[in-house]
Amino acid sequence: MSYEHTIRRRVEFSETDMAGIVHYSNYFKYMESAEHAFFRSLGLSVVMDRHDPPVGWPRVHAECDFLAPLFFEDEIEIQMLVCEKKRKSLSYQFRIRKLQGGQAVEAARGKLTVVCVTRDARGQMVSLPIPEALARKIQVAPRELLETSPAPLRRA
Amino acid sequence: MSYEHTIRRRVEFSETDMAGIVHYSNYFKYMESAEHAFFRSLGLSVVMDRHDPPVGWPRVHAECDFLAPLFFEDEIEIQMLVCEKKRKSLSYQFRIRKLQGGQAVEAARGKLTVVCVTRDARGQMVSLPIPEALARKIQVAPRELLETSPAPLRRA
Amino acid sequence: MSYEHTIRRRVEFSETDMAGIVHYSNYFKYMESAEHAFFRSLGLSVVMDRHDPPVGWPRVHAECDFLAPLFFEDEIEIQMLVCEKKRKSLSYQFRIRKLQGGQAVEAARGKLTVVCVTRDARGQMVSLPIPEALARKIQVAPRELLETSPAPLRRA
Amino acid sequence: MSYEHTIRRRVEFSETDMAGIVHYSNYFKYMESAEHAFFRSLGLSVVMDRHDPPVGWPRVHAECDFLAPLFFEDEIEIQMLVCEKKRKSLSYQFRIRKLQGGQAVEAARGKLTVVCVTRDARGQMVSLPIPEALARKIQVAPRELLETSPAPLRRA
Repeated sequence: MSYEHTIRRRVEFSETDMAGIVHYSNYFKYMESAEHAFFRSLGLSVVMDRHDPPVGWPRVHAECDFLAPLFFEDEIEIQMLVCEKKRKSLSYQFRIRKLQGGQAVEAARGKLTVVCVTRDARGQMVSLPIPEALARKIQVAPRELLETSPAPLRRA
Repeated sequence: MSYEHTIRRRVEFSETDMAGIVHYSNYFKYMESAEHAFFRSLGLSVVMDRHDPPVGWPRVHAECDFLAPLFFEDEIEIQMLVCEKKRKSLSYQFRIRKLQGGQAVEAARGKLTVVCVTRDARGQMVSLPIPEALARKIQVAPRELLETSPAPLRRA
Repeated sequence: MSYEHTIRRRVEFSETDMAGIVHYSNYFKYMESAEHAFFRSLGLSVVMDRHDPPVGWPRVHAECDFLAPLFFEDEIEIQMLVCEKKRKSLSYQFRIRKLQGGQAVEAARGKLTVVCVTRDARGQMVSLPIPEALARKIQVAPRELLETSPAPLRRA
Repeated sequence: MSYEHTIRRRVEFSETDMAGIVHYSNYFKYMESAEHAFFRSLGLSVVMDRHDPPVGWPRVHAECDFLAPLFFEDEIEIQMLVCEKKRKSLSYQFRIRKLQGGQAVEAARGKLTVVCVTRDARGQMVSLPIPEALARKIQVAPRELLETSPAPLRRA
C-alpha cells in the first residue's frame, strides 16, 4: 500500500511565459505527472483501457497556491500525497519545491480531486467504484504529513 | 467602471487529450484569456511594461471545479467577474459554459487571485498598489451576481 | 470546391515564452487551427468518427520558416492553401501575417502534409483513400497563389 | 568540443490529443529540450542573459517528419546532432526513437535552424556572431552520422 510519490524534473523553456517565469497552467501539468508516476510506482497505469470496463479519471476539482516563481532550468520536485480516498474518487495534495544549493524551497501547494468513471452504452461518462486491484494498493497519508492549514502568504 | 467580461471561443484539437476531452490545464488558459480581454475592454493591457514602474500580475491562487466535459469544436463562453479588489490584489470568478442549441450548459467554475508586482533593483518581484489608472476602472461585481455557494456536484 | 481558408486570432499570453515572443511550437497549433476551420467551412469536421470507417489525419511532415517574431496581443491571420491532393494525403501551405495599422506583415510560412487513416482490426493505423464526400469538396489552389520559392531571409 | 547530445523522457498524458497519440506540436518541444540539454552538457545555458550583450536563439526554420505515432507512457530518446555551424547560426538534426523491449524504433526526424541575436538600443532583435566561448565548444557532427537522404515513408 502506498500514499506518496515524488518526482524530479527541470523547468523547460517552453513552460515559461513572457514574464520570465513558468506559466501557471503548467503547475497543473506538473501535478498530473506526479500522479501518473504514482500509478506507475504501483505497477499500474492511470490509463486502464484494458480493464473491464475501461476506467478513466476526469478531474472534478483542481487548485494551486503559488508561493514563489519558477524559472527556466530550475530543478524542482513534485511531491504527491493521497489525502482522501472515497468509494468513487481520490484526492491528492501536492507540494512543488525548488531544489537549489542542497535546499528545497517551497514554490507551490496544490490539490486535485479525481473521480473514477467508465462510459455507458451511449458513450456518456458515468462514475463507478474504484477497481479493487487499485483501491487495495492506495491508502490515505498519515494526518501529520497532510496540509491542514492554508498556504503561507506568497512572498510576492 | 467595469466588473464583467465574457469571451467566446471554440475548443481546439490541440486542447484535447487522449481521453477525448479538453485537458484540465487548458481551463486555466481559458480563464486567463477572459481576464486579458477584460483588461483590453478597459482600454488597457495586462502587460503594463510602459507603466512606470512596469507592473505584472503573477497568480497567487487558482482553482477550478469541472462540471461537464468539453469536446473538440464545442463553442464555449468564458465569463469573468471581479469578486474582490484589494489595494494590491484582484480576485476573479469565472464560469465556463458550453453553447449548444441556443442553450448555455455550465461546464466549469473557476477562481483566480492575482497580485500587482514590479521588480526591485535586484530584479526581485515586489508587490505594489494597483496603479490608479487601472484601479479607477475596476469595481467589484454586485453580490447577487457572485457565486457564494460551492459548485454543484459534477454529473460524472 | 475550395482550396483556401483564412482565420484571425490574437496572440495569447500563454503562447509567449521568456524571450517575450510566441514560442515556435505554437505556430504549428496556429496552422492546425486554420486547417480545421477549413474543414468546417466545407461543412465537415476533421474528426470524422461517425464516418464508416472512422478516419483521422495524422501528420507526416510539418515545417515552418519564421520571418518575424509575434508578440502578446498581436492580431494575426493564418491563411491556408491546399497545395497538393493525392489519393491518400493532402498538403497545405500556410502564411501567418501580423495585422497592424491596416497592413499585413508576413511573420511565417509553413507547410503540412497529412495522411488519411483508419484503424484496422488490431487497432493499428492504416492509410486509406480520402473519403469521396471530402475529396469532392477540396481542390488544389491555382499555381500562382502557391509559394514556389524559398522564404525570404528572416530580418533577425 | 561536442556535436551530439541525447536525452530520454517519458510521454506525458498532457502531450496526447484526442487521437490518442502525441500531438505533433510537442515534437518541437522535445527537440528543444534536447538542444537545451546539449547547451547544459557544455556547461552553458541557452539563456545567456548575463553574457554581454545578452544573446538569444530565435528559430528561423523548423521541420519534422513523423514516422510512427507516440503513445502515453512511451519511453523515448531524442538525439541531437549539430549539422551546420555558421558565423551567426546553428542547425541541428534530431532523431526521436521509441524505446521498447531493448529496441529503439525510429519515430521522427527533425531539423532546426537557430540564429544568434541580441537586442539593439531600440529593443529590436539583431543577429550577431555566436559568442566565442560557445562557438569554441561546438563542432559539426561527422558527415557519416548525419542524415543526408529523406526520411523513409511513414508506415501509416
